[in-house]
Amino acid sequence: MTDLSGTASSGTASSGGRRAARGPRRVDLTAHHDGSELHVPAATPALGDVVPVRVRVPAGEPAPEVLVRVVEDGEPRVYPARADGERDGERWFTADVPVTNPVTSYRFLLAGDGVGGADGGGQAWLNGEGVLARDVPDASDFRLSTTAPGPDWARDAVVYQVFPDRFARGSGRHEGLPDGPLPDWALPAAWDDEPIGGGPGTGTQLYGGDLAGIEAHLDHLQHLGVDTLYLTPVFEGRSNHRYDARSFDHVDPLLGGDAAFASLASALHARGMRLVGDLTTNHTGDAHDWFRRAVEDPTAPERDFYYWRDEHPGYVGWLGHASLPKLNHHAPGLAERLLDGPGSVVGRYLAEPFAMDGWRIDVANMTGRQGADDLTHDVARRLRASMAAQSPDAVLIAEHFHDAGEDLRAGGWHGTMNYAAFTRPLWTWLVDPASAAGVRYVEAPLPVPRRPGGAAVAAMRAFGAAVPWSVTTHQWNLLGSHDTARLRTLVGSRERVEVGAGLLLTYPGTPVLFAGDEGGATGVNGEHARVPMPWASIAAGGGPGWDAATADVYRALIALRRSSRALREGGLRWVLAEDDAMVYLRETADERLLVLAARGPWSGALLPTTLLGAGATPQNLYGGADLAVTAEGLHVQGDGPTFQVWRLA
Amino acid sequence: MTDLSGTASSGTASSGGRRAARGPRRVDLTAHHDGSELHVPAATPALGDVVPVRVRVPAGEPAPEVLVRVVEDGEPRVYPARADGERDGERWFTADVPVTNPVTSYRFLLAGDGVGGADGGGQAWLNGEGVLARDVPDASDFRLSTTAPGPDWARDAVVYQVFPDRFARGSGRHEGLPDGPLPDWALPAAWDDEPIGGGPGTGTQLYGGDLAGIEAHLDHLQHLGVDTLYLTPVFEGRSNHRYDARSFDHVDPLLGGDAAFASLASALHARGMRLVGDLTTNHTGDAHDWFRRAVEDPTAPERDFYYWRDEHPGYVGWLGHASLPKLNHHAPGLAERLLDGPGSVVGRYLAEPFAMDGWRIDVANMTGRQGADDLTHDVARRLRASMAAQSPDAVLIAEHFHDAGEDLRAGGWHGTMNYAAFTRPLWTWLVDPASAAGVRYVEAPLPVPRRPGGAAVAAMRAFGAAVPWSVTTHQWNLLGSHDTARLRTLVGSRERVEVGAGLLLTYPGTPVLFAGDEGGATGVNGEHARVPMPWASIAAGGGPGWDAATADVYRALIALRRSSRALREGGLRWVLAEDDAMVYLRETADERLLVLAARGPWSGALLPTTLLGAGATPQNLYGGADLAVTAEGLHVQGDGPTFQVWRLA
Repeated sequence: MTDLSGTASSGTASSGGRRAARGPRRVDLTAHHDGSELHVPAATPALGDVVPVRVRVPAGEPAPEVLVRVVEDGEPRVYPARADGERDGERWFTADVPVTNPVTSYRFLLAGDGVGGADGGGQAWLNGEGVLARDVPDASDFRLSTTAPGPDWARDAVVYQVFPDRFARGSGRHEGLPDGPLPDWALPAAWDDEPIGGGPGTGTQLYGGDLAGIEAHLDHLQHLGVDTLYLTPVFEGRSNHRYDARSFDHVDPLLGGDAAFASLASALHARGMRLVGDLTTNHTGDAHDWFRRAVEDPTAPERDFYYWRDEHPGYVGWLGHASLPKLNHHAPGLAERLLDGPGSVVGRYLAEPFAMDGWRIDVANMTGRQGADDLTHDVARRLRASMAAQSPDAVLIAEHFHDAGEDLRAGGWHGTMNYAAFTRPLWTWLVDPASAAGVRYVEAPLPVPRRPGGAAVAAMRAFGAAVPWSVTTHQWNLLGSHDTARLRTLVGSRERVEVGAGLLLTYPGTPVLFAGDEGGATGVNGEHARVPMPWASIAAGGGPGWDAATADVYRALIALRRSSRALREGGLRWVLAEDDAMVYLRETADERLLVLAARGPWSGALLPTTLLGAGATPQNLYGGADLAVTAEGLHVQGDGPTFQVWRLA
Repeated sequence: MTDLSGTASSGTASSGGRRAARGPRRVDLTAHHDGSELHVPAATPALGDVVPVRVRVPAGEPAPEVLVRVVEDGEPRVYPARADGERDGERWFTADVPVTNPVTSYRFLLAGDGVGGADGGGQAWLNGEGVLARDVPDASDFRLSTTAPGPDWARDAVVYQVFPDRFARGSGRHEGLPDGPLPDWALPAAWDDEPIGGGPGTGTQLYGGDLAGIEAHLDHLQHLGVDTLYLTPVFEGRSNHRYDARSFDHVDPLLGGDAAFASLASALHARGMRLVGDLTTNHTGDAHDWFRRAVEDPTAPERDFYYWRDEHPGYVGWLGHASLPKLNHHAPGLAERLLDGPGSVVGRYLAEPFAMDGWRIDVANMTGRQGADDLTHDVARRLRASMAAQSPDAVLIAEHFHDAGEDLRAGGWHGTMNYAAFTRPLWTWLVDPASAAGVRYVEAPLPVPRRPGGAAVAAMRAFGAAVPWSVTTHQWNLLGSHDTARLRTLVGSRERVEVGAGLLLTYPGTPVLFAGDEGGATGVNGEHARVPMPWASIAAGGGPGWDAATADVYRALIALRRSSRALREGGLRWVLAEDDAMVYLRETADERLLVLAARGPWSGALLPTTLLGAGATPQNLYGGADLAVTAEGLHVQGDGPTFQVWRLA
């Protein structure tokens, strides 16, 4: 078993690792805490509150002393925890954490003979990375935030991402592109053309999907079980992706305009579904109204919205692209137009007739950051405040490809597209190098390395520990998007797609799938993977571009998530991370699920019977495998690839 | 060998670990970078600069591809590095890092067969924690800062900390306490009384040491080799430690007043020595002029300097102490009086007749932090700017007992008292539990755990990696202070004191010793360890409270540090961390030293001969042990406890 604590030099309190005389390895649990209801009261705390937090330590060894270390106004303080009795083979302790600052960080100190392993000196920390018998920085401390989390519906949602040009053509245009002149930049494509993955035509190849096309296929979404539609931009641009907006005033006429967007929104809401839009706060297109006015009239108020430079092209462009001038959030007029209140861009689409349910913010990680300027937390908080005032139930998600901990603790974004703590580590575990030849992780210059489960889990824990639990449950987890290769291409088999989808639908946070993933769509990079939905194959129950068995897998897993509150709200407790298998628990006060993901055959494991509720027998909820119970323990078989879920209590 | 990368789940590129058929284990080097002159140009970069950074990879395996990942305006970019030739058995590469933000973080990506070990997938990151074959957050990235480091003299200094009441009585009062009435709070002590370590009298026991006493013993400091005197507060308070200032206007008359302080400063400067003072910016005493005025007159300008509350005692006190009212740095008038310009408290003592060479800031980690307020970076930057304008060569050091990474990157403090990355990890390695019974780490509630070298080094790397190298070289390293037990009590033997002192004097950063450490002073906690200097024993060449052999050790190690630029400015490259031994290199362009610290006997090691400069033979600079060179490698013997330094090139 890979040391789940993430370090070689530390032991783990109560960690197992003995190999049974024959058969699978015996695995013991380690001390555990997370921010879920079993451990922390659900209400968002206020400054000055004292929050009782609970931690549990497997029984069966000398009772440890348990303390909590809390950083208050920059000073670590340590307080004893109270023993709270034993249940299901574990000792519970409660410690009081004073909520001193907007984000209060805490971790536990365990002490006693054997704690931290033979070399631990009888003391170990328990933080978000696990049990560590060495001094550790504060980065992976647990955290309480006085900022309210995103809305409950967003935590409970399953999100379906659509790239409008590639989903479906509206009823009036099944046979081709829109009537009338195409934009000057457009390169018309037939619906079954392969998307151009790089070079000329990548951004201009136009398939002609539109909003009416999406509205016409909402049955597909509902049949799959998703309940939230996330649309990449619908503003007019000079590209098929529309991230180079010409204006935020109206929806692109090519998509059907404002009327089609309002109609789609109404249709979604009528079905009890939600709609999330996509806004670029980092830059506009160089054809944008604001930028044109700024260029044409240096005295225009829009002049301050951008960063001007003497060097070519005369202003700062996103990653050097002259077509994407960077917005300067020092300009007070910009916030008024873009962010603040019902009349701003942000506000206008939250209002009727669209009544959008949230925004996903493009390039959020760079928004407001330029040289010595770092206004990104101000922008995020302002955006949230504006949305909260107008639509308290709207969600705000940031695009972020790397370490978002600092940004997520600042009280702005409800969550990020969780590439760092979910996508990337799982890609390294599930990748099939043969199938994934040519696949890169977003902008990475090298192929995706194939690594063992221990490396993936250590990364998931390290990145995941950086945010309060109230954010964890609102992270948008994904295994692919319009910016990545397709999962099916990455992993090379339907079976491993199932393993990935299983993780996606059983992990804490909101699952997001990119339209077509459910049919096994392929593609070697973001552009190449923006494949049109193969409606003919779908209607035929399978065919080119559509694997109906994969769709069944997604449908079943989505239904599973909907059936279990533990999968949506429960804690996350890692049980093991082998090279080829990972096992975790999802728990609420009334439910305990055991999740197994194996990318291939492995040794199997023998888990403590205490995991089983009193009088309970394991009930397989997904995957169909047996979980035998003997006096020795729960026998997890070493088959793979496989994905299994059992209810234990 | 403990995996120096700090994680179990990752391999290390080019890492060794083969055990020779007989004898010591063979250790290979791993890829390396730090901020020292061999790798990064010394000049402080400006925004817009492009800084060539160099990294080296041991030869002897397929040439890896080397890239650099740089975070620019919040976005990670990856660029290839250029191969730069081979030297001393290593391949060198250079990468260009654009300095985009005030702090620019970067790390290296190594790729090729075998990189990251068998499970690494052929790719690994190199950051401040080492070579890691998993996805890692940004916390341990290398960093370039556009903020100038502290002054060179501070980097090159050896600091001697004196607690004024306990060093020496001035010439007029060798036989007792000062003439005239004692303060009402004082509990007079005889010079050879044991300090009270807790309970009544701890803060009021007064020995009567004064500034004239210090001035009379400067020969002692110079003979030892230290060149900078750091004095804990000299302002009048109502305690022996004087952290509860009644006023910042004058030096305590009990210490000799302003005149004695000016005289001491002059005497130090005449010897080419420096003087650093101690200021509390987090709070004052409740007897302080400002606080009295604020209490007596709610309309007084000083009213805004504090946080008032309805609850008892009517204001916020430091950690709840009513005697130490917390300062509110929102008050504009406070900065004017305390921080800004030559007329402020900070400025006044930097000017003649004191001309102090810097400030150490008490409770810096909490300064400006209170509930929703977090002004600590503003205060630190303002303090620095004020000092820089008046005394560009003055140093600014923060008290900080835990993770100071975020605070140190903010461009205020030049460094901290480096408890987190130095003191605490080494305490866990050097502690002798029998001798250290009753010893706690500062406010820790439990004994100091004894842990292996791997745990200590992993912690030193993790905490150390959080700051730019320009800060690393200006950290105040220490193994004890007026706030801790004494090293001698912690480690239980002269031999292990020597190991600790050896690490202190050969590690990057400014060594700081607490007066008396050099004679093996003892004490179980901060208060108990504030022992008066045993001048009679010192004069006799040994006796109660004074171990002359330990003083010789410190003198020799200080002289060693002075003799070697590599020890003051060189890079830090970890070679191994065994349970009982740690080995590192300190290197400049013209010098390579090998440092061995062993807390006890260990296996010994066989290091690559490529560490030896062409035609060079190892020269022992400290400790006297042989370093045999054979065709197999450099033979480091497994004796211990021992501390050894060799010059290799």
